[in-house]
Amino acid sequence: MIVKMSPTASPSERGAVSEALAQAGFEVQPVALPFGSFLAGLGPGEAFAGKLRAMAGVEWVQPGESTPALGSLEANPGRSTVAIGSCLVGGPSLAVMAGPCSVEGPTQVQTCARFVSAYGATVLRGGAYKPRTSPYSFQGFGREALEMLQEAGRAAGLPVVSEVMDPGDVEAMAPFVDCFQLGARSMQNFPLLKAVGRTGKAALLKRGPSAGLAEFLLAAEYLLLQGNPNVILCERGIKTFETATRNTLDLNAVPILKARTHLPVVVDPSHGTGRRAAVIPMARAAVAAGADGLMVEVHPDPDRALSDGDQSLTLAEFRQLMDEIGPVAEAVGRSLAAPRQGLRQTGSGRRGLGWGAAG
Amino acid sequence: MIVKMSPTASPSERGAVSEALAQAGFEVQPVALPFGSFLAGLGPGEAFAGKLRAMAGVEWVQPGESTPALGSLEANPGRSTVAIGSCLVGGPSLAVMAGPCSVEGPTQVQTCARFVSAYGATVLRGGAYKPRTSPYSFQGFGREALEMLQEAGRAAGLPVVSEVMDPGDVEAMAPFVDCFQLGARSMQNFPLLKAVGRTGKAALLKRGPSAGLAEFLLAAEYLLLQGNPNVILCERGIKTFETATRNTLDLNAVPILKARTHLPVVVDPSHGTGRRAAVIPMARAAVAAGADGLMVEVHPDPDRALSDGDQSLTLAEFRQLMDEIGPVAEAVGRSLAAPRQGLRQTGSGRRGLGWGAAG
Amino acid sequence: MIVKMSPTASPSERGAVSEALAQAGFEVQPVALPFGSFLAGLGPGEAFAGKLRAMAGVEWVQPGESTPALGSLEANPGRSTVAIGSCLVGGPSLAVMAGPCSVEGPTQVQTCARFVSAYGATVLRGGAYKPRTSPYSFQGFGREALEMLQEAGRAAGLPVVSEVMDPGDVEAMAPFVDCFQLGARSMQNFPLLKAVGRTGKAALLKRGPSAGLAEFLLAAEYLLLQGNPNVILCERGIKTFETATRNTLDLNAVPILKARTHLPVVVDPSHGTGRRAAVIPMARAAVAAGADGLMVEVHPDPDRALSDGDQSLTLAEFRQLMDEIGPVAEAVGRSLAAPRQGLRQTGSGRRGLGWGAAG
Amino acid sequence: MIVKMSPTASPSERGAVSEALAQAGFEVQPVALPFGSFLAGLGPGEAFAGKLRAMAGVEWVQPGESTPALGSLEANPGRSTVAIGSCLVGGPSLAVMAGPCSVEGPTQVQTCARFVSAYGATVLRGGAYKPRTSPYSFQGFGREALEMLQEAGRAAGLPVVSEVMDPGDVEAMAPFVDCFQLGARSMQNFPLLKAVGRTGKAALLKRGPSAGLAEFLLAAEYLLLQGNPNVILCERGIKTFETATRNTLDLNAVPILKARTHLPVVVDPSHGTGRRAAVIPMARAAVAAGADGLMVEVHPDPDRALSDGDQSLTLAEFRQLMDEIGPVAEAVGRSLAAPRQGLRQTGSGRRGLGWGAAG
Repeated sequence: MIVKMSPTASPSERGAVSEALAQAGFEVQPVALPFGSFLAGLGPGEAFAGKLRAMAGVEWVQPGESTPALGSLEANPGRSTVAIGSCLVGGPSLAVMAGPCSVEGPTQVQTCARFVSAYGATVLRGGAYKPRTSPYSFQGFGREALEMLQEAGRAAGLPVVSEVMDPGDVEAMAPFVDCFQLGARSMQNFPLLKAVGRTGKAALLKRGPSAGLAEFLLAAEYLLLQGNPNVILCERGIKTFETATRNTLDLNAVPILKARTHLPVVVDPSHGTGRRAAVIPMARAAVAAGADGLMVEVHPDPDRALSDGDQSLTLAEFRQLMDEIGPVAEAVGRSLAAPRQGLRQTGSGRRGLGWGAAG
Repeated sequence: MIVKMSPTASPSERGAVSEALAQAGFEVQPVALPFGSFLAGLGPGEAFAGKLRAMAGVEWVQPGESTPALGSLEANPGRSTVAIGSCLVGGPSLAVMAGPCSVEGPTQVQTCARFVSAYGATVLRGGAYKPRTSPYSFQGFGREALEMLQEAGRAAGLPVVSEVMDPGDVEAMAPFVDCFQLGARSMQNFPLLKAVGRTGKAALLKRGPSAGLAEFLLAAEYLLLQGNPNVILCERGIKTFETATRNTLDLNAVPILKARTHLPVVVDPSHGTGRRAAVIPMARAAVAAGADGLMVEVHPDPDRALSDGDQSLTLAEFRQLMDEIGPVAEAVGRSLAAPRQGLRQTGSGRRGLGWGAAG
Repeated sequence: MIVKMSPTASPSERGAVSEALAQAGFEVQPVALPFGSFLAGLGPGEAFAGKLRAMAGVEWVQPGESTPALGSLEANPGRSTVAIGSCLVGGPSLAVMAGPCSVEGPTQVQTCARFVSAYGATVLRGGAYKPRTSPYSFQGFGREALEMLQEAGRAAGLPVVSEVMDPGDVEAMAPFVDCFQLGARSMQNFPLLKAVGRTGKAALLKRGPSAGLAEFLLAAEYLLLQGNPNVILCERGIKTFETATRNTLDLNAVPILKARTHLPVVVDPSHGTGRRAAVIPMARAAVAAGADGLMVEVHPDPDRALSDGDQSLTLAEFRQLMDEIGPVAEAVGRSLAAPRQGLRQTGSGRRGLGWGAAG
Repeated sequence: MIVKMSPTASPSERGAVSEALAQAGFEVQPVALPFGSFLAGLGPGEAFAGKLRAMAGVEWVQPGESTPALGSLEANPGRSTVAIGSCLVGGPSLAVMAGPCSVEGPTQVQTCARFVSAYGATVLRGGAYKPRTSPYSFQGFGREALEMLQEAGRAAGLPVVSEVMDPGDVEAMAPFVDCFQLGARSMQNFPLLKAVGRTGKAALLKRGPSAGLAEFLLAAEYLLLQGNPNVILCERGIKTFETATRNTLDLNAVPILKARTHLPVVVDPSHGTGRRAAVIPMARAAVAAGADGLMVEVHPDPDRALSDGDQSLTLAEFRQLMDEIGPVAEAVGRSLAAPRQGLRQTGSGRRGLGWGAAG
């Protein structure tokens, strides 16, 4: 259960509520978030909620254990924004996170970074630790890749996001990334969620392939309960019977989540469809549905990508994507961040060289 | 298997191909469509395709039995348009099919019709024969409802679409509707598909809740094979594990279908989500994804609707939908049909009366 | 809503309830079934249920429109049995319905019939009208196939079941079959359900690939509401993300249905798995789960079958199936029907000839 | 890719293959398993497989990166057995793993342990670290629970299995458990799989709720690749549209897995159905389908359980389960382990006290 204290609650009122919870057998955990000060108790509290609501200094009580609390619009009727370095996710302009599935080498990631930055991306993505269905598949270049990613991001003026898989890696990764990505397979990796939550860093939580939206929101509670408000939800496709797409990108999640949570919601049409040809139309659709941003895979030479080549956009396709989502964003009252003109010229200049030559 | 004859093929070339098919044991069926003249043979023809391709007058052969043929971009590399009365589906302007789930009475359907016409709908929808999960639920007013629907459509200047469930009803319904709706539960009701196909009338084929896109396209072949080119595909949500929506509207279907078929594709966000709050955002998203039109449920008083009240838009919400999809349509190079100003004034004037009073 | 009258209710009590329903606006339909006499009213009746329950002669009221009523254990706390000719489904011995997917010719279906009868099958199955995903696939031999099926059944001493797809075919098919099969694609073909219900003949209702068990039971109500108690439910696999099987045979349906309905439940592991190697183990499992019978596809030469060869058992495999399910049936307190010894000798004698030679 | 060396391969032949792999750019990892000696290389090796197959000492090459290799029947055409302490999983007698969802206190787990042991369970299960959808739900008693579990197991003569969630806990947990459980949410927690694999201890790998069988087998490869042959696969239900059960227990997995892998396969009908009433029928079905064992939740007082009460069997129901699966096991040529008579008397004697009194 979660108790939201009034902003004007006195320390003694707070103490009284905390004691009442403890006496009722709850293990009490204070949670301070930008949108309020909370007391969390483990377990269901329906029987106890009435008494708490009557106590001085109590603003709101969510007694259920299976109902999103800290992420709900009841806990924060506003809209949260999350900063990933210079990029504000959830504000008027769309966040565009772009980059390769895997960081494969300095030239690849730098080429990508410069290009996507030039055409309006606001965050650089790139995988260092890759969760792969098979142990015989490429597993990512790890620590080395993180360094390349960070350097490429700095050169292109972009903050970076990369996936973390092991709670034991969180501390070591923190200096390299502006945002931790929690992959779809890790949505219910609770030790990992807690470890990332504790860093206070931005966390991009991807929806699990079999997670209902209620479960998705409850996974976000694990992060918020650590006192970390910097949680971004990412729809990336669910598992269905349909085989024409790799996953079924569930854009319904955007309006449904927006009606329940104050957290920003972004959409990944690359994993969500797994088909290059569907990425741009579904990116437009995501923006029209009200998403706060996009995450897309971009590779200078998708056919030679070490992972996810089928769904990665070429540089030219990324440019087309940005060209096409701009008017849609405007149509729904959003905007794109201003592209970086200086870099764009560089990017344009290099386009002729291609990825092979650059490598 | 399907053989497309060249437009310049002579009667004797055509005869030779037909005979070759017959001699190989195929039951041969000629199919004349606006985009070509075809010979269909029942059964797989891989072994025989090479010989056919070499014959004079043969343009293209699709030998497989499990591959969409007449609806494919190979059979018609253009884009088909389908006329529902005055509304052209698949052209530059969006088709907007709106109206009540069920026709409940003359006032209800007329109020709806006038209003949706005034704000830009191009087709009036309304159920007369209702497929209901339970036999104890309202089953529609049948023939009587068809008459009311047609009359309301005429008064508002809108062609009408209504669902047919029984092959035995097709002939009797034909004079009342401009387009037959084949509901999701009927997508693989093959006798019904054949009967509707034979009428030559426009048919709106809804995707079955467990139909992959390949199966959906094969169901359309049943209609096309009757020589009826007037087939519109409608995405309306699939069955998944997600319970936050009634169905999972699968907008991925739009770009994937567009990459495979020349048939127009429309989207029904009302059944697709089952949640009123999600209908408008998903309608915007459908347009952004490239849909050729929308089908939405509109009811003057959804809370008293005899069916599907939870997902029906109010008149005011329909107006908001039209306001919101206009800019998105423009952003993707489409337009809305010009709304009927005369009716709009009437519609506005009556809004104050409300549905209850009017009833 | 459904009202069950007490067996001792007088005509005037019955009349009073009927009138009360009519006055409350319900369209009243009397339903006489072996396990009780009912009055059905269209629409929800929660508000009215209390009054009805207080009326003389009323035994039970199910007011909801979305709750199975006539098929529920409340309507009949016993277990219904359904006779398909000589085969009693739902009794102590297992019903085994076996035969080819499609009737392909007299020799094929006679060979099958003799063999499966000799090894203990109790019903002969065989398709005449085949619902096929593609119009280019073999569609069944229709009327002619029905005649062959009936004749083969008679010769082997077996009643027959065959699928009906079109309400317009029901009357003509009735003399040829002992049981109508309503295929998975037709589970919600309500005009068809009503037409079959009206015949009073046994109906095997297959679960739709995306039908929840509640929807399945509501589809059965369409049959029961026609006063036809002879309804058999058949689990045959649902659509899931798994591609290792054609469908996901959902054996959980057996105990869940048994806890809710008095109708017999059989299982089709052929369609349910689509893999010959899985048919026998899943047949054993179905029996162990408490199924009242099995439906399996058997073909003398599956590799040359015109449909569903991948999932059809050979004659030898059918014999193995019968050998293996016997002990399992006993382990759960059921038995197999005694095999027909005379036929068995014939069957054995012919096994050496094979299907090709016999054709 | 995976290369299986011949048992008679010389060290120099082995060295030559290893060098060939290294020269082709593969990172080489030797894997010694009871059924063979392997060399693993990261990445696809189709182009290279022919050369390897021709080398001396090479028995078999699996070049794909997306195909199960070490777990396949090609790698080991026999059937693997895995020892969990005194219990052999995969042998002629069924493994029965029973116990509470969560260890809630010494009396609860001891009562369970004694009882299930007396009636034929062969392994004691109990959760110490509980992965819970909501952070506000009971999270398990951790280390303390492990000690209680181990003690209860020792007293009842049963080895124990418990779930591990964090790679950082593996080492500390190892002395307390005879088998690590890898929960459904962790099936693709690759760092965890590697850590558990390295211990060499038995690992029970549960199928993820959205994992196809191919993905399930590939997850097992992560364990096997650490040189740990002690891998048990556990079917526990997948996520589908059906809401009548918590998950859809997919028994088809049993025959399909058995046709592909030498690893033992057990079934968890408790999580697989989530409904107490379905547990026993589905346990019978699992045994009939060919499962090597069962995992079931048993609680002395399910209504007061801190987790999963709805699906836990009472002690009496567990006894009934054992009574019912015995004959089914025999019917398919398996047996139950002989129950511990001494304990059974104790268990029977205590049954009157009940869980409440004992607590």
